[in-house]
Amino acid sequence: MPVTELNSSAATTRLSAAFQAPAARPPIWLMRQAGRYLPEYRETRAEAGSFLDLCYNPRLAVEVALQPLRRFDLDAAILFSDILVIPDGLGQPVRFDEGVGPVLMRLEDTADFAPLSLERMRAHLAPVYETVDRLRAELPRDVSLIGFSGAPWTIATYMLEGRSSREFTLGKYWAYARPEDFRVLVEILVEAVTAHLSAQVEAGADVLQLFDSWAGVLDDWGFRTWVEAPIRAIVGKLKARHPKVPVILFARGAGARFAGLAARTGVDAVALDCTVPLAWARETVQSETVIQGNLDPAILRIGGPAMERAVADILAAWASGRFIFNLGHGILPDTPPQHVAALVRQVRGA
Amino acid sequence: MPVTELNSSAATTRLSAAFQAPAARPPIWLMRQAGRYLPEYRETRAEAGSFLDLCYNPRLAVEVALQPLRRFDLDAAILFSDILVIPDGLGQPVRFDEGVGPVLMRLEDTADFAPLSLERMRAHLAPVYETVDRLRAELPRDVSLIGFSGAPWTIATYMLEGRSSREFTLGKYWAYARPEDFRVLVEILVEAVTAHLSAQVEAGADVLQLFDSWAGVLDDWGFRTWVEAPIRAIVGKLKARHPKVPVILFARGAGARFAGLAARTGVDAVALDCTVPLAWARETVQSETVIQGNLDPAILRIGGPAMERAVADILAAWASGRFIFNLGHGILPDTPPQHVAALVRQVRGA
Repeated sequence: MPVTELNSSAATTRLSAAFQAPAARPPIWLMRQAGRYLPEYRETRAEAGSFLDLCYNPRLAVEVALQPLRRFDLDAAILFSDILVIPDGLGQPVRFDEGVGPVLMRLEDTADFAPLSLERMRAHLAPVYETVDRLRAELPRDVSLIGFSGAPWTIATYMLEGRSSREFTLGKYWAYARPEDFRVLVEILVEAVTAHLSAQVEAGADVLQLFDSWAGVLDDWGFRTWVEAPIRAIVGKLKARHPKVPVILFARGAGARFAGLAARTGVDAVALDCTVPLAWARETVQSETVIQGNLDPAILRIGGPAMERAVADILAAWASGRFIFNLGHGILPDTPPQHVAALVRQVRGA
Repeated sequence: MPVTELNSSAATTRLSAAFQAPAARPPIWLMRQAGRYLPEYRETRAEAGSFLDLCYNPRLAVEVALQPLRRFDLDAAILFSDILVIPDGLGQPVRFDEGVGPVLMRLEDTADFAPLSLERMRAHLAPVYETVDRLRAELPRDVSLIGFSGAPWTIATYMLEGRSSREFTLGKYWAYARPEDFRVLVEILVEAVTAHLSAQVEAGADVLQLFDSWAGVLDDWGFRTWVEAPIRAIVGKLKARHPKVPVILFARGAGARFAGLAARTGVDAVALDCTVPLAWARETVQSETVIQGNLDPAILRIGGPAMERAVADILAAWASGRFIFNLGHGILPDTPPQHVAALVRQVRGA
């Protein structure tokens, strides 16, 4: 299928419609909608070998991305992948250890940046782009296909810490004490993220989401310098190539910095985490951009009247404006699938 | 020393002056200013036995509270204690395991609430109040003595989870799925926190701080119901007894909810965490109350030009208004003490 035809379809999918005008009912998709809470996912996952084997296997990655859409009336599929395919592709191998999470041989000095290669990444991630292409072919034309990437700051923390961190000792050391050296890495990541997202659009993604999961651990200067500036650079480059593809930014923990974030970065929508107050977001963020969010995944796991109350609060506050229903963070692995079904029914107004 | 005389001194300490009008230079104290980063603390700690043995030993607890004031020109001492002395006092024993943190036999049902006893707590925490009394006697009259307590939501998470949590599965289960049962526990904690803080004032504390460290994990409804409402109740009761003692609220992760928080809870100052944007806080929070914060302890640990830049940014934004300089979270154990000295010098303008 020629790229132009795929791109021209972008304006017509269910999610991208939300960027034009408020819908009668908001569209809905859920972060980590393909995942361990689904028994069929666990089956496919067992077949795949390692977690990254699954991400790099187009047949299986397409299968797990489609699984939630077979069960639930969702408006979008999201590429099944991981934010750490970028370092893995650039030449800093990543593995996922059970009970630990991602493990990388950490970058220790600027000399370790030199071998990172965009060309290697493009070749290494070819199966990811093939997954996008196959997914687009499998999905009904009006169902959106979301491509995604981690954002530079969040990816950099893993590359420098070597694993998930609570304190971000090394990431902050580079960010604050060696900003000129850190900038070298961030600039590599700006190019890598741009290339990775462009390739997904060219393979058929019609909406993009940037995950800056650790945006919330930086101070004012750090947030401007290492979250906003690199994302603004990425979005500028993307818009030059793919002006019609909306970009959603999930900058978890941004707090009061969600206000004005779309204008400062150029993104088309701001994904709000669970802690954002509803009335404030309506007045301050939704008035300037499309918002997405923000049911607490812990409340989805609880289900029942607690979830009904929380969903009703969100709909009452935001559904009359430009809005995409989602969680404020990814689905938890022990979430009963029937709670997801009930959530989708409630948002659909059924 | 009679209580009335101590209380009458409240209006004259260095910190409480900040509640009247902006100072030429802001007063400064630091969360966890007495702690593991000081070699003399580690020595006293080794002498004490367990961590709670240290909290309950007035002679040693006074010693560690005074240690940072011998090294640095700080405007306040803070009681050396822990937020979990409240469950420990109420009859749910707490121990601190090396590398794990606090461990409690968790409350499993409402039947477990019944044995919790305020009377037991008052007796059990007598050494804490004796520490406050002795500290007040040791401190110069103009140096403030800060009493503190955890807030109900944060304390309740430990009582229900049994330890530190990343997901708050059980705390959120009670908060959202069993709100009427959870309210019973929160009401016990409102009484306990009020009694604990009142006893500290009566022993000589002239400023109070409430720590709601896990305020940031709740959604809009949860924050209003389990953070703001109980704190409003506590502050109302405290103000009836001790109208002149200022109360500072540290509701970590409140984000946009820092705006209006003082008015919604009745506190006299809002402590801001590291992620709060400086200009927004000046316009939105400092315009309505005293603010405290917000240097990232990771930047204090880094020191040098990175810290100078961050401190200068904070002073430029906030020092012309009502402001108490502090960190946005507690000092990290591996912080070089000379960085603290440099910080205090910079804030003093020396």
